[in-house]
Amino acid sequence: MSFLNGTKIAVIGGGSWATALIKILCEQNNVQIRWWLRNQKDIEHIRKYHHNPSYLSDVVLQPKKIKVFEKTTDAVKGADYVILAVPAAFIEEALQDLSVKHLQGKRIVSAIKGMIPGQNILITDWASERFGIELKDTCVIAGPCHAEEVALEKQSYLSIASTECPAAEDFAKLMTCRYVAANPLDDLYGVEYAAIMKNIIALACGITHGLGYGDNFQAVLVSNAMQEIGNLVTALDKRERNLSSSAYLGDLLVTAYSQFSRNRLFGNMIGRGYSVKVAQLEMKMIAEGYYATKSIYEINKLYHVNLPITHAVYRILYEEQAPGMVMDDLKKVLK
Amino acid sequence: MSFLNGTKIAVIGGGSWATALIKILCEQNNVQIRWWLRNQKDIEHIRKYHHNPSYLSDVVLQPKKIKVFEKTTDAVKGADYVILAVPAAFIEEALQDLSVKHLQGKRIVSAIKGMIPGQNILITDWASERFGIELKDTCVIAGPCHAEEVALEKQSYLSIASTECPAAEDFAKLMTCRYVAANPLDDLYGVEYAAIMKNIIALACGITHGLGYGDNFQAVLVSNAMQEIGNLVTALDKRERNLSSSAYLGDLLVTAYSQFSRNRLFGNMIGRGYSVKVAQLEMKMIAEGYYATKSIYEINKLYHVNLPITHAVYRILYEEQAPGMVMDDLKKVLK
Repeated sequence: MSFLNGTKIAVIGGGSWATALIKILCEQNNVQIRWWLRNQKDIEHIRKYHHNPSYLSDVVLQPKKIKVFEKTTDAVKGADYVILAVPAAFIEEALQDLSVKHLQGKRIVSAIKGMIPGQNILITDWASERFGIELKDTCVIAGPCHAEEVALEKQSYLSIASTECPAAEDFAKLMTCRYVAANPLDDLYGVEYAAIMKNIIALACGITHGLGYGDNFQAVLVSNAMQEIGNLVTALDKRERNLSSSAYLGDLLVTAYSQFSRNRLFGNMIGRGYSVKVAQLEMKMIAEGYYATKSIYEINKLYHVNLPITHAVYRILYEEQAPGMVMDDLKKVLK
Repeated sequence: MSFLNGTKIAVIGGGSWATALIKILCEQNNVQIRWWLRNQKDIEHIRKYHHNPSYLSDVVLQPKKIKVFEKTTDAVKGADYVILAVPAAFIEEALQDLSVKHLQGKRIVSAIKGMIPGQNILITDWASERFGIELKDTCVIAGPCHAEEVALEKQSYLSIASTECPAAEDFAKLMTCRYVAANPLDDLYGVEYAAIMKNIIALACGITHGLGYGDNFQAVLVSNAMQEIGNLVTALDKRERNLSSSAYLGDLLVTAYSQFSRNRLFGNMIGRGYSVKVAQLEMKMIAEGYYATKSIYEINKLYHVNLPITHAVYRILYEEQAPGMVMDDLKKVLK
């Protein structure tokens, strides 16, 4: 019996990314998905019709491989892996019924691109501490990958990072299928921080696009952003990294340039003159970059890395400074 | 009298990039542009109406600062700088009337992103040899910058590279204005090769887009491309470079992602099933990447750098292999 046979995977969260990951996992022959969603109506719909009515509703959810649960304590029972896929702001609440004993011996996989708001800690660090799991038994899933293109079975690539390669390698096998290639890396912190930073950059891209800046400017913004991400990640966890690889640059590009990016859309509304409040009401999904901006800004008070793009976004979102004026300042320091 | 006062600049070429550069130069108070164009009708139109009828025709061409010439020998007379801005394939013919004595003491600036076809040598190397000009008196202008957005006065950035910074610094001052920031670098070869390579990558982006690949794939393609460019440039001229800076990554992004890229458009037609011949006929402008693919492929026979994307494009354009099959092979080696 190979490693993959009969692997049980709990998935916590009912959004588009959770749904896309489940679709990928179901491409394996012998897996059992134990899926927890918050919304009772969605649970009933999925049980009856095998589609998620709220996200990626075209995706067929194979009933032979998927069991849906109301309680997280039931979902994680017997699971080898627990995938966390709710917005960072809701993860503490979502897992409130789980204790150390529920997750003993399991590997935790974070598919969340954000930090615990207020505490400014990484999801893997938080989960490791909260559930007494060794950091080497945690992974993070990064892109470049939009859920919407997974639903369409367009060729995609994932980056799976852990502190030591074996955990990432094992999980990468589960995430590889006809239309997805998953590559393991041993840079947990680097990949996780880069994935968080990229949402801030996508906000900046959206804001400047909304203000009327063009493709020339965006190319420079993204190049400077890649350096900003590299500088912060190096300050937080110094090591050799190939920043041009898909886990860092690719993940940034797919978010900064794509029509599917919620963060870019949110930024675009801000650039066009919507207030932060109104933009948040207009969007039904959470733009993780909003919280990430504050977290990274606060973390950087200890490190003093030069983060001009993050600071510009912070001034707009949290200090209510006019986007046009802030970006006028920013364009002078970019090169 | 400051350095900029009364600077005379010959511009060779009448396309959109030449027109955009002239617009930028005319933002200086005291310059004289000596402009050579091949097309007699365009020359007469510009003299009479102060607009280029063929490219960026909205741009006002200030008659006080611009003189238009039929002969290159007249255009370069007394010029401090000679900017070369015709497609690489036509540069030898365009400059055929010029000899060493015509260009003595002048600085040559290449705004061409290509190589002399057949000979596979850089424009700056060719011009330096052909006109007996020291390499330190040559510069290259790289992006990230689309001419179309310069015409719209959208904030843009240029990279000006020479072997030694002073030449690049002097010329960068001339190219800086209200909506353009020009940054000097001392990496002539690196910037020039990267600018050539990016057109091959834009072709690959266009081809895969035409074949139906999505944003997820493109992000991975561009990340791998940045590594491919880095590997080749390092093999050709080993030194420390920040590949994430605008001159390299930015220039790649603006070409790979923008609607204005001719190379991407050309590739897109190939991906959609047009033959190379038909795609070339459909496009009125030259896609430099077509020639660059062959040049880089041949140069690399000496260096043996792993260039999977360039090789894929070569197979499609020069070996008439089916785009779908070639990209199927490519997607397996990307990660």
